[in-house]
Order: sequence, then C-alpha cells, then structure tokens
Amino acid sequence: MQKIELYDTTLRDGAQTEGISYSVQDKARIARKLDELGIHFIEAGWPANPKDREVFKIFKSRPLKQAGLVAFGATRRSDKKVNLDSSIRSILAADTRVVTIFGKTWDLHIRDVLGISLDENLRMIEDSVSYLAAKGKTVIYDCEHFFDGHKSNPEYAVKTALVAQGAGASRIVFCDTNGGTVTSALLRIIHQAAPKLKVTLGIHAHNDLGLAVANSIFAVENGITHVQGTFNGYGERCGNADLSTIIGILKAKLNIDCIAYRKLKDLTKASHFVSEVSNLRQQPNQPFVGSSAFVHKGGVHIDAMLKNPKTYEHIDPALVGNHRRLLVSELSGKMPIILKAKEFELDLEKKSPQTEKILKLLQDLEHKGYQFEAADASFEILIKRTMKQYKKFFDLESFRVVVEKKPDGRITSEAIIKIKVKGIQEHTAADGDGPVNALDNALRKALKSFYPTLAKMHLSDFKVRVLDEKAGTASKVRVLIQSQDESDSWGTVGVSENIIEASWQALVDSAEYKLLKDKVK
Amino acid sequence: MQKIELYDTTLRDGAQTEGISYSVQDKARIARKLDELGIHFIEAGWPANPKDREVFKIFKSRPLKQAGLVAFGATRRSDKKVNLDSSIRSILAADTRVVTIFGKTWDLHIRDVLGISLDENLRMIEDSVSYLAAKGKTVIYDCEHFFDGHKSNPEYAVKTALVAQGAGASRIVFCDTNGGTVTSALLRIIHQAAPKLKVTLGIHAHNDLGLAVANSIFAVENGITHVQGTFNGYGERCGNADLSTIIGILKAKLNIDCIAYRKLKDLTKASHFVSEVSNLRQQPNQPFVGSSAFVHKGGVHIDAMLKNPKTYEHIDPALVGNHRRLLVSELSGKMPIILKAKEFELDLEKKSPQTEKILKLLQDLEHKGYQFEAADASFEILIKRTMKQYKKFFDLESFRVVVEKKPDGRITSEAIIKIKVKGIQEHTAADGDGPVNALDNALRKALKSFYPTLAKMHLSDFKVRVLDEKAGTASKVRVLIQSQDESDSWGTVGVSENIIEASWQALVDSAEYKLLKDKVK
Repeated sequence: MQKIELYDTTLRDGAQTEGISYSVQDKARIARKLDELGIHFIEAGWPANPKDREVFKIFKSRPLKQAGLVAFGATRRSDKKVNLDSSIRSILAADTRVVTIFGKTWDLHIRDVLGISLDENLRMIEDSVSYLAAKGKTVIYDCEHFFDGHKSNPEYAVKTALVAQGAGASRIVFCDTNGGTVTSALLRIIHQAAPKLKVTLGIHAHNDLGLAVANSIFAVENGITHVQGTFNGYGERCGNADLSTIIGILKAKLNIDCIAYRKLKDLTKASHFVSEVSNLRQQPNQPFVGSSAFVHKGGVHIDAMLKNPKTYEHIDPALVGNHRRLLVSELSGKMPIILKAKEFELDLEKKSPQTEKILKLLQDLEHKGYQFEAADASFEILIKRTMKQYKKFFDLESFRVVVEKKPDGRITSEAIIKIKVKGIQEHTAADGDGPVNALDNALRKALKSFYPTLAKMHLSDFKVRVLDEKAGTASKVRVLIQSQDESDSWGTVGVSENIIEASWQALVDSAEYKLLKDKVK
Repeated sequence: MQKIELYDTTLRDGAQTEGISYSVQDKARIARKLDELGIHFIEAGWPANPKDREVFKIFKSRPLKQAGLVAFGATRRSDKKVNLDSSIRSILAADTRVVTIFGKTWDLHIRDVLGISLDENLRMIEDSVSYLAAKGKTVIYDCEHFFDGHKSNPEYAVKTALVAQGAGASRIVFCDTNGGTVTSALLRIIHQAAPKLKVTLGIHAHNDLGLAVANSIFAVENGITHVQGTFNGYGERCGNADLSTIIGILKAKLNIDCIAYRKLKDLTKASHFVSEVSNLRQQPNQPFVGSSAFVHKGGVHIDAMLKNPKTYEHIDPALVGNHRRLLVSELSGKMPIILKAKEFELDLEKKSPQTEKILKLLQDLEHKGYQFEAADASFEILIKRTMKQYKKFFDLESFRVVVEKKPDGRITSEAIIKIKVKGIQEHTAADGDGPVNALDNALRKALKSFYPTLAKMHLSDFKVRVLDEKAGTASKVRVLIQSQDESDSWGTVGVSENIIEASWQALVDSAEYKLLKDKVK
C-alpha cells in the first residue's frame, strides 16, 4: 500500500479547543516536536491573523527540518478580485511552499450563509486555486462540509472538487466539518466520489460521533492517502481525529507506512509534550499513549499477564514508547506487591512473613479508604517502614491550623507547627492560600535548614475524594497529592474524617519520599 | 431494523477504571438512573465479591423498574464440579433472573493461562451454561477474546459459541477483550461467524484503538442486536464502548430503536450523573453529552449558526438534552436561564436588564469555577437574590476554624462563629469531626433558636473537586453539598482557594434555601 501522508492541524483546528490559547512560542515548539516525529505537513495557522504571521516569521529564520510548513486560508471573497483579496494576499505573504485553502461544498452554506449562486462559488474556487498554483505553491484544497454537501447535492459537491483539481490543486481533502457522518455513510460517499478524481485524496474528520479515528482509518483502507488530524484529538466541540491514535493504528496494527519505524517509540512522548504545552491534562485512557493505556488492575488479569503479556495487551507498549503498569489494590493479590517491591530494589518472598504482613496492612488500609493506585510513593514508604529500612526524618509534636473569616470578609489561613528534627525542636508558623497550603508552607519552613533538598520539590497536583458521601460534612476524605522535582514525579495519599489530617499524611509521605530518593541521612 | 438491546457494565467493567472506587450506594444510585433511562440490562457486579453481594441484596428489597438486573461471573473452574463451584454458586445466590458468564475462546489463553485442554474448556462452558439454564436463568454468554481467538483458531472460537448456544445460552456476545481489533477485521470475523449461530448476538468492544464505538455501530449495521458498553466509556486501560455515544448515534443519527424517544433528552443528564457519582470529571469534548459538544467559538461559525444552526451542528443539541453555547456572544445561555427561572416560577424577560444582570453574574461565576448543574438550590438563591426577592436571614460577622493535632496524636476541630440575626448578635462555638463539620454545627447552633425548622434538615452528601489541579495545595476547590429534609433534597455549591470558605458558601446557600422553601419570615 502507498505511504500515507500525515497532515497536522493542531495549531489551527486544535487551537479552537475550549481552554487552549497558544502563544507564538508554543506554536513553534509544537511544530518542531511534530517535525522531529516525522509528520509530513504542519499547518501553523491563518496568516490573515497577526499572531499567526509571527509564527511564519519564526520559521523563515529557522525552517523545519523535514515537514512542509502550511499556511491556511479561505478562497477569495465573492466581491473581491483574487489578487486583491486580503486572505489570499496574506497566504502569499507567509511565504510557505505549501498552502491550504478551503472552499464551500454544501449548497445550504452557499445559499444561506454566503448568499451567492452556486456558479459564483465555483468561480471563487477556480480563481483562488489557480492564482496560488501559478505563484508556484503546492495547493491543498479542503472541501469544507464535503459529506453534508454530498448528501444534499452530490453532483455539485463533486463539481467543486473537480474545479479545484482542474485549477491545479495537488490534493483534494474531503472534510466532515460538522463531524456528524456515520462511517458507513462516509464510505458510500467516498466510493461514489473518489473514482471521479485523479489527484491525491485526503480525509479531515471531526469527532462529534466519536468516529473520527474510525472514519480516517476506513478512508485509508479505501484508498485515501492523505490524513488530516490533530495531536490528542484537540479541536472545537468534540475535537478532530487524533493523529497519535491514527499513527498507532497505521504503524503498529496495520503495518501501513507513515512515520519512520524508529520514530514510533517517540509517539507517547510527543503526545505528552503537546498536552503539556497546551496546558491540558493528558487523558489517562487515551489509546496507545495514555498513562492507563497499558494498566492492569484485577488479580486474574495480572496473573495471566505474568504468564504471557499478549493475553491482555494488544501490542507491546514499548513499541509506542509507553509502559505497562500493574496497579496495587486489594483485588490484585500478592504478585503486584512483590513486583512493585522489586522496582524499589526490595526483595520480598511470596511466602515470607513480611510479605504477609505488608499484604495484611495494605488490605486494612484499603478498607479504611486508602488507595495506592495513584500513590506509588506512599506505597514505597509503607513497604520500607514495615521492613524498617529507614529511620524517621522528623517527629511531629503538634500542629494547629486556623482559618479566619474577618468582619471585612477577608479570609486568612495560618498553620503553626512543632516538630523535632535530629533532636532539635522547631516551632514555626506560616500563612497560606488555604489551610492545606498553610500547613505545607509551615512544614517546609520547619524542615528547610535541616534538609535543603526539599526546596527543590513542589506539589503539582492535589485531589480530594469524599468517601461515603452520605455522612455529609463528617465524611471521610481521601487526599491524593502529586509532587515533583527536576527529574521525577510521585504520588502520596492520606485518609481521615479530617481533611487537614488527611492532607498532613500525604504531605509527610511526600517529603519523606523525596529525602529517601535523594539518599539524605 | 430490529430493536437493539443495550447492556450496561459500568458497575463491573467501568469499576475497573483507574480512580473509580464505587461504594454499594454509588452502584445502587447509578443502576436506578440507568433503569430510568431505559437501559435493558444492568450488570451490577460479581456476586463472588462480598461488596457486590450487598448490591444485589439492595435490589431484592427494592427492584429495578424495567431493566434486567444481571449477576456476572466465570464458567466453572476446571477442577470443580459445576454445582460445587463457588463462582457459579455465588451467581445463583444473587438471585437475579438474568446472569452473564464468560468463558475462554482464545486457544492461547486456554493453554498458557488455564493450562488445560481445548476440550476441557468446552466442557466447562457446556456445564456452566446448562446448569444455570436448568435453574431457570436467562443466560448471556460472553465469548472473552472472541476476535483474538478467531484470528488464532477460527473453528475453535466458533465452537465455543456453538457449545454455549447448545447448552441454552439466550445470547452469545463477541468480546474484543484486548480492544486491539481494527473495524475492518472485526467485520470480516462477524461475517464469518454470525451465520453459524442462531441466537441473539452481541458485541462488547474495548477502546484501545479508539474504535470501540465504531466497532459497536458497525456490528449493529451488520446484524448484531445486543450491545454492551459503559457510561462515559469507563473501563480499564482505554475504556469500553461509550453507551452514551452509542445511544446518540443509534437514536439521533440512524433512527434505530433502543431507548424510548422521550427518554433521549435525558441522555446528557444521565451521563453527567454517572460522572458525578464516579467522581471523575466529565470530558468536555465527549460526543453528544460533553459541555463543549455544541460550543461555537469562531465568529464566522457563530454568524453562520445564527443564519441556520444546521450549518455547524450535526443535530439539534436539545434532542439529547444538551445545549448550544456561543462563547463570544452575549446571547449564549440566555434561554437556559429563562427556562430555569420558569421552574422557580420567576418570569424573566429575554431583554430585561435583570436577565442581563443574572446572565453576566452567572458567566462570571462559571468562569470562576462555579457549576450549577448539581446545585439547583444555589442557582435559585442566586436568581432570587439578584431580583431582591427576599431579605437576608442573617449576616455573618466572622468565623474562626481551628484544627489541632495534639502531642498525643488526637485531632480536634472547633469552629467559632459570630452572626447577626434579626438585630441580635449570636456568638457561639462547636466541635466537629473535621473543620467543615465543626462549621456546619456552629452555624446551626447559632441559628436554631431563631429558625427551628433548620433542625429538620441535614446534609446528605459532600463532594470536593479540585479545579486547576496544577496549582497544588493552593488550587481552587469546588464544594458541592447535598441537603435534605423529609420531603426534598437540594444541592448547593461554593468555590474558593480555601476549602473552608467554599464549604461555608455552600452551607449558607443550603440553610437559606431551606428557609425560603418553608416560607420562613
């Protein structure tokens, strides 16, 4: 089968996601990362937009290595000559080798939105494509609403594509702009339209039915060789086709050429990079690249996995740069505990009394509401404490946390803490944005002269789950804290009817983990 | 086309999601919500597990209205007689009309995991299904790893299904347990296997390729009439097929019968309910039901939308109980507010300054992280306050909350509160199980002599969600409180960087709502 061209529009369609707002530098960083991965075309934005013009300037001075940088815009306006149209002029000014323009395919849009004749729309397409092609550009033509247009008026929809082809477009892309086309209907339309066209054909799918990946893969299996999408499926409404999933399927499942095989192991990292720069949380259940994508929880599954990983894994996670995780929970038996201990270079025997003891402790704690799935560090601390592998770094004598709402409406939070470190009593206090933040600040303040390495860690995530919600404000809560330093990230847990005490437990585990990790004495 | 049977396994497969940990009450609440929606089968868990046995007991005393409650388990063990097998016995003890058992299809599993002969596996299937059928159960048989098994040994895979059919299974379900089957391959296998079987056939798809919905829909379009999935696509690794999306496609796009048409508008609410009880954030980009699913950002799109909504919406969002949001337009969300106000018998004019004011306030609050979906009472209070429909029942002067951890490890929580009621200052204090409980107790103590009706309400639910988790312990939190008295239940919300302040807001709204409801002057 022919090699598939991948076309990324994270920086244009992806930027439409609620909550995403890229700076010029963000766009440049994402583009370079996708260039490294081997994406063939990277659409950097609309040069009609001043901010996006800056992005194109950056790449003039330091071009991408292999990807074709693409400037995007619309066909000329109905009341403008093509050489005077501001959108077309801005595309030329971006000075890229490749340009993409979109035009109308759906008669409903042409009549109800543009208010022009179907013929006038064809002239706009022809003028715009031929003008850009004559300027030496590789022109990709996006048929907006191709499938809805084809359902409404099949002859006219195909005619718009034929006009673009005749005017010199090198690729014609069928867009499911509203994302409402079911795969079987999409296939029927491709089978009707594709044979009438000669140039390379592309697919651009939106995910309003949760079918964007399926629609893209089916299109490829039916002769389409150019695939447009975004990383992590970003995009307005329900998003676009997720290129990270599409690459995983094409390369790891169907053995269809797209990016180089040696780059496939960078897929997970690239996806996480894009979510970091986009400041959106990575979906744990994202296919191939999510943190839960190769996780195993139930004891039956874990036992089978240990006999043969193929039993519950559809590919080797290393192939896409991800890794297997065995979750420790009361359901999962002794093996995960032993394997987990091995990660920390602790040898537990399946039948040793210590393993029994840890398992018992774990079951008791889970019964009380502790959960170690997202709290690896607390789990390690628990094992090491039980095995008496370290002496305590400090002893708490007491703390007091005071939250006040003053008559003027102002709120203050203060924590006072008394601890003993290496025989010395520290008694100190700190303010904070809330009671837990104040306690966190006070603990660090008390410890910092003894353990300067703690200054290099910070808390990156804080979650509260109310257990047994029916008890109302007297319910037990579970607090999960994620901490990080320059090289690692770790999770800790605490449980109590008192949210301050639960947070305290997780804060202490986090600090102790950091000190153990750094081999502080 | 035949009516499609929907089978929900949120409470069993969905419970395998990293981070989900359902209480017995959570399971019961979700089951009743799905029962109302019209899901045909609801799998409540493994009765082999003590916690799940409690769930089945609850439904003995108060059965579901229309759905078939399903007990789940495995075929008998190879070394057990079927009538002595503990898993089979526990299924019977659950005392449901419908049971589902799964058995092995894939020769790799039978050899490498079970270590038994292919024939022995067939006997296990036959014994288990026929024993349960003889006890009068409707038996659904899940062919675990059906597609992987069929790829490896097609004759044997089909044979396991034929044995189950011969033994009296009423439905045979093809499971893509590892979720690694591409749709085109899945279809080929269905076309080969389905004609050999006579009973109702089902599909159970996992989402490791992002194709679970596509695989389910294609299966239906190719003759499968029983569809298994979970709400919001919960499930281990990358999750299961999302029933909320499948219902949307079947009913709103393909006009295939599954739930009643009049129930379709409850789809969004049901999905949000499940995510609330699961304490997982609703994915904004979830098809049909996500908060971004019908959001419009760009000016061009919004202009077109106002001319004709079909231009950028694949269905009318109201069909599934969702609504359009226009992000840059002041028109966005006005209708829902007017409709909501009507529920409280408040007439808002679309163009009145008061509607403008409420809209503005609401947008500000939502921007800050407030959410009124599960906090109707706070929403009503907000409208009535803005419309000056009541005078305040009390004024807070100040509060102070103190949490102490003493040298002996004991923890105490105390709240001191100063409020003014009907011109009289009340200054009092109370202890509690945690800081919020103490504050709750102190507020009631201060108010009880003025408003005795407050003694008749209590808090039934307390939820904390961390917004913007990246800010660590200084993050904003949203507190949702559910309160109830003898006749009603109502939700209130508070948001702050300080969890005590956020809880205070929700506590005050709850008390004020109760007083308004009881027409206290």
